[in-house]
Amino acid sequence: MSSPALIALDWGTTSLRAYLLGGDGVGLDTRASSAGVMKLPAGGFDQTFEETCGAWLDAHPQLPVVAAGMVGSAQGWVEAPYVETPAGADALVAGIVSVKTARGVTVHVVPGVLERGALPNVMRGEETQIFGALASEPSLGAAGGALIGLPGTHAKWAFVGNGRIERFYTFMTGETFGALRDHTILGRTMHPSATHDEAAFLRGVDTARDAGHAGLLATIFSTRTLGLTGQLTAEQQPDYLSGLLIGHELRGLNEVLSRERSALAGKTLRLIGNDALCDRYRAALARFGCHDARTVAHATERGLYRIAALAGLVAAPVRAA
Amino acid sequence: MSSPALIALDWGTTSLRAYLLGGDGVGLDTRASSAGVMKLPAGGFDQTFEETCGAWLDAHPQLPVVAAGMVGSAQGWVEAPYVETPAGADALVAGIVSVKTARGVTVHVVPGVLERGALPNVMRGEETQIFGALASEPSLGAAGGALIGLPGTHAKWAFVGNGRIERFYTFMTGETFGALRDHTILGRTMHPSATHDEAAFLRGVDTARDAGHAGLLATIFSTRTLGLTGQLTAEQQPDYLSGLLIGHELRGLNEVLSRERSALAGKTLRLIGNDALCDRYRAALARFGCHDARTVAHATERGLYRIAALAGLVAAPVRAA
Repeated sequence: MSSPALIALDWGTTSLRAYLLGGDGVGLDTRASSAGVMKLPAGGFDQTFEETCGAWLDAHPQLPVVAAGMVGSAQGWVEAPYVETPAGADALVAGIVSVKTARGVTVHVVPGVLERGALPNVMRGEETQIFGALASEPSLGAAGGALIGLPGTHAKWAFVGNGRIERFYTFMTGETFGALRDHTILGRTMHPSATHDEAAFLRGVDTARDAGHAGLLATIFSTRTLGLTGQLTAEQQPDYLSGLLIGHELRGLNEVLSRERSALAGKTLRLIGNDALCDRYRAALARFGCHDARTVAHATERGLYRIAALAGLVAAPVRAA
Repeated sequence: MSSPALIALDWGTTSLRAYLLGGDGVGLDTRASSAGVMKLPAGGFDQTFEETCGAWLDAHPQLPVVAAGMVGSAQGWVEAPYVETPAGADALVAGIVSVKTARGVTVHVVPGVLERGALPNVMRGEETQIFGALASEPSLGAAGGALIGLPGTHAKWAFVGNGRIERFYTFMTGETFGALRDHTILGRTMHPSATHDEAAFLRGVDTARDAGHAGLLATIFSTRTLGLTGQLTAEQQPDYLSGLLIGHELRGLNEVLSRERSALAGKTLRLIGNDALCDRYRAALARFGCHDARTVAHATERGLYRIAALAGLVAAPVRAA
């Protein structure tokens, strides 16, 4: 077993995940905390850091520490200003900002990425996961380009080429789902269900995908009217609405692709995120003709390790075949 | 001045508006109550009816009473089952269901309209307003067909021809705006503003209208990122988001029209609703090339009077030139 080489933090808005990584970048230990950037205890970042990583540092006081996510935002521990697209891993390394903890340890905070333009986009944390995916599968970042999806509260779709994040889109799919379910009339006729209703989910995806409707603001009302007319049970309505929104996201992405003479159909792409959500996206992508959309495992740790290696904090890993 | 001929009720989910109408259908008196179908006091429908209309009935015990809206839903005073599209005023009259009040008065409740299909639609109350608009401007209902928009929490767009509601769409624009503003990250950087920022609103409309974006779930995130990059103030963000959503609604409507070789550009249509909201829609419609979108005044009272006349409850009004 390899000895500890790096503490890597994925510190977002609602949670913190800490990894103790070996010299080859593989995980030795992990800890989770609910003390996200917007949910810190009275002791703030320092107290949370000590509670999460203190024991590791007691045993190995010289371990370098790297962190990514909202911890580097204006509301974070220290602000690491955005790097602009197109952004390679070298630019992220150059943008690292450090903060000294109460214990005297230096935390190296990776910046997020900003895309300027008429509809600007920002990410914090996902850039590190994307470079983790490229570390796992270097061919993804080659000249031909790759598409990487990160489902979630604010889903991201990044176009990667020449080893750089060239541009990306943010879809507020997860958060819009929650707001519609919990704070509109659509939730009133829904019952939560312990099991995922695949047929209802795919019906939503297909409805959003197919032409003939009047857009998202119109299709979502069918969650209610299909219930009123006995075509969806109360338990099916949440999965139907989820399918509708994910379907509208993929339809939007497909329109972006079509403008550059590409399409989801037949495309190779990668997903990063929790398994259940990636499974949903894979099922939805299949309805758009995309059947090569594997989930990249350990993208977060790999990305943090890779950036730490490029920054000279740890030795570069031996690349897996 | 004409003597009272009809009590007409527009009784929706969140409010009740009662009209005392003369023999020619014009308003003699009006009363408003916040006791909507979902906000009734302990005494229920009967108490609210008495408080709102009791004095009118004390003075004129023989007045007929007609009502439209959610009062006829399954959660209403009495259920008036939906009439299906295509629906003319005669079908609405045939579908009237009556309920006897504690005072012994009969309330005639107008049914809503249901459109079956893959994406069913329902309305309750708007059908009466639409027939009110047709009563004001009979040419709208001629064979060529007309488009009538009813902005609001659940905006409706109805295609009317041959004096019938042929089909319609529901856009959850108003309710989605509220849910996004009050229950997502978008609200966190907004400040309410006492004045309407027309430029920010139209910027949102134009963004939704123009090609090049990835759909509503993506464009709404720009409310935040235009703020982060200094292009929208906190006070402008609510109007920008409102413009985005209304723009997406009109874009969806325009796509429906394009499938039948029509378009909003150059089209004549009518709006029914509160003046400030109709003004917003008119400004947004102009960005789609539609410059003939007047608001129909008194559509609710006129529709209720017309249905009451067809039902034989009152004499038909002398038609205004």
